[in-house]
Amino acid sequence: MSSLESDKAMSPKLTVELLRQLRLAMKNCKYFSEPIQAYIIPSGDAHQSEYIAPCDCRREFICGFNGSAGTAIVTEQHAAMWTDGRYFLQASQQMDNNWTLMKMGLKETPSQEDWLISVLPENSKVGVDPWIFAADQWKNMSKALASAGHSLVAVQDNLIDAVWLDRPQRPSTQLMTLGLERTGMSWQDKITALRAKMRERKINWFVATALDEIAWLFNLRGSDIEYNPVFFAYSVVGMKTIRLFVDLKRLEDPAARQHLQLDAPSRPELSIQVSPYEAVHTELQAVCAALGPKDKVWICDKAGCALTQVIPKTHRSQISYTPLCLAKAVKNATEIQGMKTAHIKDAVALCELFAWLEKEIPKGTVTEISSADKAEDFRSQQKDFVGLSFPSISSVGPNGAIIHYRPLPETNRTLSLNEVYLLDSGAQYKDGTTDVTRTVHFGTPSAYEKECFTYVLKGHIAVSAAIFPNGTKGHLLDSFARAALWEAGLDYLHGTGHGVGCFLNVHEGPCGISYKTFADEPLEAGMIVSDEPGYYEDGSFGIRIENVVLVVASKPKYNYMNRGSLTFEPLTLVPMQVKMMNTDMLTQKERDWVNDYHRQCMETVGAELRRQGRKEALDWLIRETQPIA
Amino acid sequence: MSSLESDKAMSPKLTVELLRQLRLAMKNCKYFSEPIQAYIIPSGDAHQSEYIAPCDCRREFICGFNGSAGTAIVTEQHAAMWTDGRYFLQASQQMDNNWTLMKMGLKETPSQEDWLISVLPENSKVGVDPWIFAADQWKNMSKALASAGHSLVAVQDNLIDAVWLDRPQRPSTQLMTLGLERTGMSWQDKITALRAKMRERKINWFVATALDEIAWLFNLRGSDIEYNPVFFAYSVVGMKTIRLFVDLKRLEDPAARQHLQLDAPSRPELSIQVSPYEAVHTELQAVCAALGPKDKVWICDKAGCALTQVIPKTHRSQISYTPLCLAKAVKNATEIQGMKTAHIKDAVALCELFAWLEKEIPKGTVTEISSADKAEDFRSQQKDFVGLSFPSISSVGPNGAIIHYRPLPETNRTLSLNEVYLLDSGAQYKDGTTDVTRTVHFGTPSAYEKECFTYVLKGHIAVSAAIFPNGTKGHLLDSFARAALWEAGLDYLHGTGHGVGCFLNVHEGPCGISYKTFADEPLEAGMIVSDEPGYYEDGSFGIRIENVVLVVASKPKYNYMNRGSLTFEPLTLVPMQVKMMNTDMLTQKERDWVNDYHRQCMETVGAELRRQGRKEALDWLIRETQPIA
Repeated sequence: MSSLESDKAMSPKLTVELLRQLRLAMKNCKYFSEPIQAYIIPSGDAHQSEYIAPCDCRREFICGFNGSAGTAIVTEQHAAMWTDGRYFLQASQQMDNNWTLMKMGLKETPSQEDWLISVLPENSKVGVDPWIFAADQWKNMSKALASAGHSLVAVQDNLIDAVWLDRPQRPSTQLMTLGLERTGMSWQDKITALRAKMRERKINWFVATALDEIAWLFNLRGSDIEYNPVFFAYSVVGMKTIRLFVDLKRLEDPAARQHLQLDAPSRPELSIQVSPYEAVHTELQAVCAALGPKDKVWICDKAGCALTQVIPKTHRSQISYTPLCLAKAVKNATEIQGMKTAHIKDAVALCELFAWLEKEIPKGTVTEISSADKAEDFRSQQKDFVGLSFPSISSVGPNGAIIHYRPLPETNRTLSLNEVYLLDSGAQYKDGTTDVTRTVHFGTPSAYEKECFTYVLKGHIAVSAAIFPNGTKGHLLDSFARAALWEAGLDYLHGTGHGVGCFLNVHEGPCGISYKTFADEPLEAGMIVSDEPGYYEDGSFGIRIENVVLVVASKPKYNYMNRGSLTFEPLTLVPMQVKMMNTDMLTQKERDWVNDYHRQCMETVGAELRRQGRKEALDWLIRETQPIA
Repeated sequence: MSSLESDKAMSPKLTVELLRQLRLAMKNCKYFSEPIQAYIIPSGDAHQSEYIAPCDCRREFICGFNGSAGTAIVTEQHAAMWTDGRYFLQASQQMDNNWTLMKMGLKETPSQEDWLISVLPENSKVGVDPWIFAADQWKNMSKALASAGHSLVAVQDNLIDAVWLDRPQRPSTQLMTLGLERTGMSWQDKITALRAKMRERKINWFVATALDEIAWLFNLRGSDIEYNPVFFAYSVVGMKTIRLFVDLKRLEDPAARQHLQLDAPSRPELSIQVSPYEAVHTELQAVCAALGPKDKVWICDKAGCALTQVIPKTHRSQISYTPLCLAKAVKNATEIQGMKTAHIKDAVALCELFAWLEKEIPKGTVTEISSADKAEDFRSQQKDFVGLSFPSISSVGPNGAIIHYRPLPETNRTLSLNEVYLLDSGAQYKDGTTDVTRTVHFGTPSAYEKECFTYVLKGHIAVSAAIFPNGTKGHLLDSFARAALWEAGLDYLHGTGHGVGCFLNVHEGPCGISYKTFADEPLEAGMIVSDEPGYYEDGSFGIRIENVVLVVASKPKYNYMNRGSLTFEPLTLVPMQVKMMNTDMLTQKERDWVNDYHRQCMETVGAELRRQGRKEALDWLIRETQPIA
């Protein structure tokens, strides 16, 4: 699955008055010494979060468009919003005619820089909130503007907030503490490991800004952002000090205080100094003021430039992936066990759902929305259920071809015996995070639907069963998922897999499987990624087969240069519908893989269904895991 | 194949006196206002050539090491030379103890920048010849040095040349003109196409520095550099002018004068102004002095910084691949026909060689060197043979495991009935360039050798038979070549393929097939690359199977998003030894591929062998192309 979607009706937001007010603020010297001629409103929050809290939905507030990706820019005369092909339709429906939709990826669409340069008067100032603008974005934008005689200026007070009268509060939910039985490693040991990495690279301070990294480091969870069990915080870790910046009210809870040993630290270097969330800027300034001449401070290159620029350039060491991101990606034995448990429970819920759907669909009463709700209902019956891990993509027939579809009342289709149904959904349990896609037909799929499903299945198996050397980067596996589709002249326009957190974000770095060769880190045993090739036929149907898989050691016949080999072990254990397969198109090896996978589903999930006494789902599972010839 | 190799005995060069003289030159104010404390001696020439002329082998001259890759740095106290793992042994044998070998890729080896910073006194000046130091290298090195208080300075006179008393002359061989029947496109039309690209990108001038691009543009060839049919030149092309910088003596030849229409240009904008090779710097200065405020000059980012820095930064547009590089990569119908013809002739020569080897090897008189010489002899009998396209890699048994092996008298092994023989060789014909590797056994290969050969063959076929969408980059195909090896725990540590020129360099950009995701351009119909997976077992044997293949349109069942599909057509038509295959390990599809390939070899090359009356080779071909069951 991917990205936050609309759940509002598709009528344009009226923005005349808002834009008038914003333009007044752009001239208001309360905010800066000289007026600015343009103001950039990015999508994100101050933590590079993919999902954001309502208080951070500033771009949506100003233009009405609520997709996951988009940047708005307002000048004295113009208002324009850039987004990508997934959102052209949605954005055009949600924005009124004060806004120009800038369709990214089309040849005629100018870049933000080029557009600004084309519309701005000479020597203009372009403002942006430096907290939510990444350091690398700043560099590119300021360089482009400077080359045309303009300048990019940091506006400390967010101008959207200034005109957003009913802006929601920043959430401050209760913190959940996780013990060793869930995390496998105390936060103290994680700090010690972090410091060892810092020592190794001669780094004196590390600034943590990504919310999932901070949650992972301190073995704490929150619910500040929907679907992501994180909480708003920063952390600055030195060799002898640990600073945590968080709404202090949250630390009045005795469980949290005790977990963090706030009142009785075990050792002085493991004592946590807590400060208000907002204090990070001044405290980091104080840290930087006291730096020795050779001291170095680590910060992610995607962190906001407000914090990045606090660190003097000579002391700054910017990295693509922080040591926490890398450590978090490799799950320990406890986390792996938790993920396995979570996936078994999740499979129980999905077996129940599919058994229920088979019974209910003929009545004509099940819709995309009610099916997704029912899936949530079944999941919520499982132990340690916390919530969904992303908005369910529940799509029937042509809706399935919209890769980032989310059912809305006005698009909601009824499940039937005549159309393909694609369900991409997942949950947060206290022991792990799930993300699974199954594509099924409740009547008789056409030969063409089966053919396409089988290409996708071949791709899924090719990745899942691949054996590859230790140190291989995920992008080198991407073509395996496409080879069968390519041979038939087909393809899909998304990556094949993303990293998955353990009771954390369902999308996490630094590994993945994609044709885009972003700076992914080599795969290693203990990493967890999704394997989700697909095929989408506009106006007809969508197919995706997604398992979450664990990277494990493999022992092939030889061991070239002693490098060792890896392969994947599926954590997701939900049958793949044999009815959708053209089994004649499968090789013997592929048939064996399907049968072996279904045997595992039956053994593991079947036992749990029996234990939970869920008879109908068990019968469904038995039937759906019969071996193919 | 790849890279220039040693053909000299492995005894160290004595460098005491040379280093003394170089250090004197480093203090000699004839060359600069202040002495320099270090001097960098890169490998290359002023044209980013992979193969270089003897006069440009400055790094070899100063340290004795003659491998294809290496950088020497001399300070007042130290002399160090960086090279990679291919050359550790060779470099240690060729350099005396005045030199420290810096083994790149080992953790303990400092980078050139770090090493310089660690050994230089404060405020040092580091010199380099800006002609042979690329603009992007300059940027990195000068930044690193500046951060430690040193500076990088351009030394216009090359200090090696100053102490190299018997330095060879820069070659100035006769130019060969190629007519339309060989090139398919006149140089006038190429200029017009280049100008159209320039207009499209709003570029006013283009500076060509790569020798193969200049040879391609003007439909001229030379023999200034062994194996590469190029000639030393620069070219600067504007919208109305064409400047060619070349040793003017070469243009006294009436054929060249007429070809370039020097005496009677057809149209004024196609009139070529010729100037001496050395005049490019001053002439480019003159061009730049006359630039309008918005004028832009294109230059490759790998061009030497001497020329790059002539172009004022605001007018400079640096590109990874020039429009000539891109245009040259897509062969036209005439070039494709020429390449096919060349490959048939090349296959004739190799059929003769293998038939001859079968007869001669039992006598015990054939060595790696004599086999390579015989191959050259057979090739030279073919029409329009010009020379080899690279030094033949002719290797028996354990020598085959040395990927960049070249037989030397002291390593020369005798071909026998007991060891695997790998021959990677190719030639330049006036109609095309070839590059082919075959791995054969003249006795009975072991089961293990056959097993490994078959994995490599599976990889070769997987790439050759792959169908993929238009616009796919070559690096996305690399894993196809490895999948079978990986499944057995094996691999090879080189890329899978490189671009191949048409009667030009055997290695050319911008496309290739490699796990290294360099900035390769998407594959398109008409491009020509090699497909050469391998497997190397240290101390035992080496296996590589290499064909040159043409990118062609493919018509699979469907055509997703109207993108069209591509696949490869082998140009190389030399049988792959069935004796080396474990045919039980092949799928039916793979067996069909082998039989189909051998049928093509038989039809096409067999006809030519018959025409040329080469009976023994024909008998060999008939036997070697028998279908497998």
